[in-house]
Amino acid sequence: MSISSFHPPQRILMGPGPSDVNPRILEAMSRPTIGHLDPMFVSLMDEVKTLLQETFLTKNKLTMPISAPGSAGMETCFVNLIEPGETVIVCQNGVFGMRMIENVERCGATAIVVEEAWGSPVDPNKLEEALKAHPEASTVAFVHAETSTGAISDAKTLVQIAHDYDCLTIVDAVTSLAGSELRVDDWNIDAIYSGTQKCLSCVPGISPVSFSEAAINKIQNRNTKVQSWFMDLNLVMGYWGEGSQRSYHHTAPINALYAFHESLVILQEEGLENSWARHKRNHQALKAGIEAMGLGFFVDEAYRLPQLNAVTLPEGIDEAAVRQQLLSRYNLEIGAGLGSMAGKIWRIGLMGYASSQQNVLTCLGALDAVLTNMNAKIDSGKAVTAALKEFD
Amino acid sequence: MSISSFHPPQRILMGPGPSDVNPRILEAMSRPTIGHLDPMFVSLMDEVKTLLQETFLTKNKLTMPISAPGSAGMETCFVNLIEPGETVIVCQNGVFGMRMIENVERCGATAIVVEEAWGSPVDPNKLEEALKAHPEASTVAFVHAETSTGAISDAKTLVQIAHDYDCLTIVDAVTSLAGSELRVDDWNIDAIYSGTQKCLSCVPGISPVSFSEAAINKIQNRNTKVQSWFMDLNLVMGYWGEGSQRSYHHTAPINALYAFHESLVILQEEGLENSWARHKRNHQALKAGIEAMGLGFFVDEAYRLPQLNAVTLPEGIDEAAVRQQLLSRYNLEIGAGLGSMAGKIWRIGLMGYASSQQNVLTCLGALDAVLTNMNAKIDSGKAVTAALKEFD
Repeated sequence: MSISSFHPPQRILMGPGPSDVNPRILEAMSRPTIGHLDPMFVSLMDEVKTLLQETFLTKNKLTMPISAPGSAGMETCFVNLIEPGETVIVCQNGVFGMRMIENVERCGATAIVVEEAWGSPVDPNKLEEALKAHPEASTVAFVHAETSTGAISDAKTLVQIAHDYDCLTIVDAVTSLAGSELRVDDWNIDAIYSGTQKCLSCVPGISPVSFSEAAINKIQNRNTKVQSWFMDLNLVMGYWGEGSQRSYHHTAPINALYAFHESLVILQEEGLENSWARHKRNHQALKAGIEAMGLGFFVDEAYRLPQLNAVTLPEGIDEAAVRQQLLSRYNLEIGAGLGSMAGKIWRIGLMGYASSQQNVLTCLGALDAVLTNMNAKIDSGKAVTAALKEFD
Repeated sequence: MSISSFHPPQRILMGPGPSDVNPRILEAMSRPTIGHLDPMFVSLMDEVKTLLQETFLTKNKLTMPISAPGSAGMETCFVNLIEPGETVIVCQNGVFGMRMIENVERCGATAIVVEEAWGSPVDPNKLEEALKAHPEASTVAFVHAETSTGAISDAKTLVQIAHDYDCLTIVDAVTSLAGSELRVDDWNIDAIYSGTQKCLSCVPGISPVSFSEAAINKIQNRNTKVQSWFMDLNLVMGYWGEGSQRSYHHTAPINALYAFHESLVILQEEGLENSWARHKRNHQALKAGIEAMGLGFFVDEAYRLPQLNAVTLPEGIDEAAVRQQLLSRYNLEIGAGLGSMAGKIWRIGLMGYASSQQNVLTCLGALDAVLTNMNAKIDSGKAVTAALKEFD
């Protein structure tokens, strides 16, 4: 019973991530592995830092990819910035806010939760009330773009309020980076993490992060050791520091960093603001098609992420069967609802390389065909035409 | 000042890892990304588990790759198995034993250190003395194959002694897996972690682990939550569990798992014991060449790892200049000494795909040429011939 090489099908990835990976990135990743102390690799690391600073719109020196997925990027922010006994205000309007609460508690700190209905953005007034009620709070954490609902929050305002009450800020930008406006320095964000497999169109597995001087100051003056050796930025800083000071910490995922570098080069070629605009444009076309079909969106238009579309279901439909048919007949992956949204929405991603005219039309055409075939209550045959008008 | 795509040189990787990656693995990694909940990916995960069980020689159900480098595999073992207030006996005979102590302390536990001279194996008698002196100890941890020195310890005996005193065992097999005899079930190892970039010849970035029933029992009956959310095996188990129970935890590094799968398929084709034998054979040839040059080994022959050769330096040589010339003139990477061994040894890896006749001859020839050119005190021109005799 020997096992053979694995040959995956060629899917169209329009779920909540991973999104379609640019073939240039796959090719870059397959280049020859070199050592993690090789001078050529050190220059790659320097370029990655520079490109990532441009992507986060920051001059933060401590800007780099963590050698593990986005959820480890999240944990890196919490274990470094939070000490046992602290109070952290977590704004929660979806699955990833809940995960933040888990992180705070595992740091031995207390989470004060500012709850918001799923699909709504975080309410700045509620955050301010919580800060008034908890003057002992050290940190405010929130998700910029909730991947579980498709809602975007006003990060600039939330950070400003947190700072008014002398709190540091931790921001989840897993789904927003490169897809929506995000300005780390202009908005004074202290700690931010993202993923590679969303609007950067890179393979999953590493997590870009950035830390302000205020954040570094806190990390370097902790009373307790960071509970994680692997994620301790005091050690990681030595590894990602300036050339001559570089000290061995762990073996970097060399080829994943080739891929990440290439994804940032591609973004630099397009231009960050052009990328934001492309995500908006393709969302408008998808929206026209979805509405022409008679379906709607879970999130109010004002807070809707262009890259993650939470679409409401036609009445009485078996949503899992629809996704299964999209996958088997069209090689098209869209996402299910997560957590309390399971069975209530589809999540259609238009992220990075997957945010293209071709994908919008394919998705609308396939969804129209599958739903029509299942006798769903939709306006059949109109979606693609409506989207095409938007592209004109 | 735009940055272009990165094109690495083609190196020969004979340091302490990453080792040369089989081109089949690089090609597998560049196959199209699919979703981490795709049924095809789920079947890949099942195959990876099966192949990895065969590699660890275990039937352990909880056998899988952690989505982060070997040092995160180490931390996963400690944060899951150790609770605050426990006593852990750490056998330390190199850099990675020191890292284990760091891990124990960051878990809020006390490390009792059984120290051994670097380059020597762990002494079973010293372990037994420590266990007698510390009946409160819950766990014994040691490194099977110390990458910093090239010494192998008698894992079977150490685990047996630990069990005699009712301790669980954590074993570092980063450098031993697939290169030296290692039998997880026969030796009754409770928790083990490894890396992909050593004798599996895969790209760095993920860490294979395996846990016995006794280990799982402890993890599932902890008094405290695991301090890391990302590494909490109670959650990871849900993700890597049986098909129908699978629950979302984090986004797996899809393409890195293609690579890992391929590396295990290649090993299966060769046969595990054949791989051990190949590592020994190539070591014998390298040894003949090194000795013909008049150089020696840091570790006694009885405890010498075939895949990681700690070679002593010719008198008065600038060892960094030698490595620099090997790299620039021959694209050949060998390793420096780590920690207290810096400036005292070279570490020549013969791991996985890099453990080949071609690499042995290239390394000896290049080293001979560079040292001769630097007027080092060696017997010039004999190394390659001596190695060739071994291959006859």
